[in-house]
Amino acid sequence: MHAIRRALISVSDKTGLAEFARSLAEQGVEILSTGGTSKLLTDADVPIKEVSDHTGFPEIMGGRVKTLHPRIHGGILGRRGIDDGVMHENEIKPIDLVVVNLYPFEAAVAKPDCDLATAIENIDIGGPALLRAAAKNHAAVTVVVDAADYSRVLDEMADHDGAVSDATRFDLAVKAFEHTAGYDAAIANYLGAVVDEPQQQHPQQQHSQQAPGLPRTLNLQFTKRQAMRYGENPHQNAAFYTARSVPTASVAGAEQLQGKALSYNNIADTDAALECVKQFTDGPACVIVKHANPCGVAYGESLKHAYERAFATDPESAFGGIIAVNGELDADTAQAIVERQFVEVIIAPTVTTQAAAAVAVKKNVRLLACGTWDPAPAPYLDYKRVLGGLLVQDADLALAGELQVVSRRAPSEAEMRDLLFGWRVAKFVKSNAIVYTRDQQTIGVGAGQMSRVNSARIATIKAEQAGLSVQDAVMASDAFFPFRDGIDQAAATGIAAVIQPGGSMRDQEVIAAADEYEMAMVFTSMRHFRH
Amino acid sequence: MHAIRRALISVSDKTGLAEFARSLAEQGVEILSTGGTSKLLTDADVPIKEVSDHTGFPEIMGGRVKTLHPRIHGGILGRRGIDDGVMHENEIKPIDLVVVNLYPFEAAVAKPDCDLATAIENIDIGGPALLRAAAKNHAAVTVVVDAADYSRVLDEMADHDGAVSDATRFDLAVKAFEHTAGYDAAIANYLGAVVDEPQQQHPQQQHSQQAPGLPRTLNLQFTKRQAMRYGENPHQNAAFYTARSVPTASVAGAEQLQGKALSYNNIADTDAALECVKQFTDGPACVIVKHANPCGVAYGESLKHAYERAFATDPESAFGGIIAVNGELDADTAQAIVERQFVEVIIAPTVTTQAAAAVAVKKNVRLLACGTWDPAPAPYLDYKRVLGGLLVQDADLALAGELQVVSRRAPSEAEMRDLLFGWRVAKFVKSNAIVYTRDQQTIGVGAGQMSRVNSARIATIKAEQAGLSVQDAVMASDAFFPFRDGIDQAAATGIAAVIQPGGSMRDQEVIAAADEYEMAMVFTSMRHFRH
Repeated sequence: MHAIRRALISVSDKTGLAEFARSLAEQGVEILSTGGTSKLLTDADVPIKEVSDHTGFPEIMGGRVKTLHPRIHGGILGRRGIDDGVMHENEIKPIDLVVVNLYPFEAAVAKPDCDLATAIENIDIGGPALLRAAAKNHAAVTVVVDAADYSRVLDEMADHDGAVSDATRFDLAVKAFEHTAGYDAAIANYLGAVVDEPQQQHPQQQHSQQAPGLPRTLNLQFTKRQAMRYGENPHQNAAFYTARSVPTASVAGAEQLQGKALSYNNIADTDAALECVKQFTDGPACVIVKHANPCGVAYGESLKHAYERAFATDPESAFGGIIAVNGELDADTAQAIVERQFVEVIIAPTVTTQAAAAVAVKKNVRLLACGTWDPAPAPYLDYKRVLGGLLVQDADLALAGELQVVSRRAPSEAEMRDLLFGWRVAKFVKSNAIVYTRDQQTIGVGAGQMSRVNSARIATIKAEQAGLSVQDAVMASDAFFPFRDGIDQAAATGIAAVIQPGGSMRDQEVIAAADEYEMAMVFTSMRHFRH
Repeated sequence: MHAIRRALISVSDKTGLAEFARSLAEQGVEILSTGGTSKLLTDADVPIKEVSDHTGFPEIMGGRVKTLHPRIHGGILGRRGIDDGVMHENEIKPIDLVVVNLYPFEAAVAKPDCDLATAIENIDIGGPALLRAAAKNHAAVTVVVDAADYSRVLDEMADHDGAVSDATRFDLAVKAFEHTAGYDAAIANYLGAVVDEPQQQHPQQQHSQQAPGLPRTLNLQFTKRQAMRYGENPHQNAAFYTARSVPTASVAGAEQLQGKALSYNNIADTDAALECVKQFTDGPACVIVKHANPCGVAYGESLKHAYERAFATDPESAFGGIIAVNGELDADTAQAIVERQFVEVIIAPTVTTQAAAAVAVKKNVRLLACGTWDPAPAPYLDYKRVLGGLLVQDADLALAGELQVVSRRAPSEAEMRDLLFGWRVAKFVKSNAIVYTRDQQTIGVGAGQMSRVNSARIATIKAEQAGLSVQDAVMASDAFFPFRDGIDQAAATGIAAVIQPGGSMRDQEVIAAADEYEMAMVFTSMRHFRH
């Protein structure tokens, strides 16, 4: 370890810069700088040397090539102990600290007025070259890409006579490569969408309500948030990664208030439960998820009431389930849950102090506060892994197309309310999905079957098992009925109305069956397979 | 568009280089080069100028900084029409073509003797800087990162008086950024695994049998293989992407011999069917998948026989299914399939000409040949998307831990064979999974239920629906039985033996139930949840 004597600083994010640089200067570090950074430091009375004075080469082309010079890159890349002679010979002075960050490309292209030329102008060439050179030669050079690391570097310098430890230099070098990887990923995604769909002017407005594009190469960077004991099964190694930008009201962004660490299956099921409960905006609602499927969903007069009704759909499956609610978790509801059942996770937008205390009696229960949500969710990309590839699609955020009553009998107001309630649930049940509902409470959930009529049969069985009558309940189906048999079976159990996408070759036969039983039938013009 | 007058060439992949460079030289292009590239070209009698002669700066530090010079980068980045004066003033001559590729970092670190120092030495600094500079200034500069593009560039130069078109320059620039993004992604993954698990010496031997690491940031690059009409549902935009290295015997690497384009759900289900059929190595076997679940799996005396037995498990669900077989698809089998049922996809390692002709009568059927597979699959990472994050785990490639007979009665040889058969199927059935099997044929598949006893009930229903007797069949369960009720129900339907992971708090109660019914019970010590 040797002391830092010379630093090159060129940053877009000026947070804490003057203080950091002043501290370096006070320790006798020579600071090389350019452009906006050198102006800020000069204004702050921190002595700097312009890079052009250091290289002897003028700053030209609007600053495009200022640091791309052997006196800079040789000073960074020179192998101490090996290249010292040649450095001296060529008047290359060692640079021991490189502080560079880049204006975020994603932020540049997210601006509404950013056209392709502006996007390209925003691509930094010199900055990544400096970061990569410094990171490669981390044996001798400290590289800082994040203002949050200034204090760490100063602390180490204070402890080690102006030097930074091997471990920190390596750690910071990895961070630099992670940064350049993410930077070029964003560029490749943006340009890869333009080249693939040249008519698109703004292919990557991730912050707008427009869906992200599907570029020629999909470049993803996720950051490890949590190592795990294991994955979906104990013999699988696993970790949870978060996206570069984590939306509020997500399992990824939620605060865990108590309980054991979330497992792989906890996170997957909590995501399903939370996304499902977000569908319900007309009052207190509760969703219970087990093995990736909602096993009970209900509105109630209070959150506690909603929970009790959701639980009643399938008490057996609710055991060990994940519970999401759409309002502040209060003590009554919390107490009702932990007293009644074994629960893995409870997630709510907010949690009262009393509710947290009520849950605290079961110290293993994971309690999460995720914040409130925007009723119009931002689009994002969904992935499904297959061997050798990745299926990529817009996340399924829509609810229904045009609603159309196709039966002779129109649904009553209460039926229509229940049909739409069941439809929202069916969207989150694994296909083929059949959901029976009455009074805004699930009565039976038929999930994951290879034939639709069996899903209906399971919904009936589940209702029986829970002691809930199907009489005058309504049925939601995530996809169309290929034959009338599903309607025949529903009618036999007392189903009064049906909601489904429509679009089967045999729609007429299916509608005729509904009319035969005086069922009301509504088409949604939208399918919701979920596998 | 202006003619290319000066090129910088520095490549790791020397394919076709001499011919390309010679053709450039013959058109009067001045070629700047260094190192191995300049030696190869000189040996091939292609005139070149050393970069050090061009810059006037010696090649030092083992070549670390040779191109990081304003005469090079200014020549690339100079804005034609804006910077001409300053370029002339500073003796910067325009460079119109940059031909650079990098020694693949992944290949370097995949070598068994690659330690951290060697890996870092392999990180190219000058190359990515050249590529990125040229790609940014694609308005004036052509950048070639792939030898496969040499002929395209020469053809365009021939057509356009030595110039390359705007569209091609842009396309090649995007390709360059895709390349640097992928390159830094590989570096960030490698170093991110070292920094996170310092004890690991070779964190990323993707080509070995060791599982890939879980680095601090996960950097993924997938390449769009196929745009799609839609995703899992018609209102979702989608595309299929493939990994940087596609294994043989995968849906991603398969050759489509006929039929419509694969849909999103086709690809997902074909992957499931193919991975499932790979489990069966003792003779001709067939798997039929519907809605992500196997709905019929069987061995047979021939492939046709295996198909017929798989079909018999659930003829209703097999309609519109995906069929995978583990041997060469012959005409008999192909004909039996297309005559008997509507099928979306047939996939086989190889397909005879006669079989292809037999399928051809149904021109929409997608027929895929995927090649034969290695019995020991290479590890890879599996992903599950949640809002704001990504769950990452080792793909579930193991089969079972120690097999242990826990019941008083040991299974007969035939029962044991059927138990292991059912276990292999259960691994691919959505949880909770219960699979009834007899004579190496599935008799009933209970999939995707929130309670295990309901999955068993569904398996019984499915067997009834198919007219198959459960008497003396065996049962496989993907996870342990939490209570004895699943065993009670299985016994009531005639199940003679059970295979399951074991590990429940109530194992003793469950084993006692098995003993009561004189069932044989085998523990696998491994769970296979699949959601």
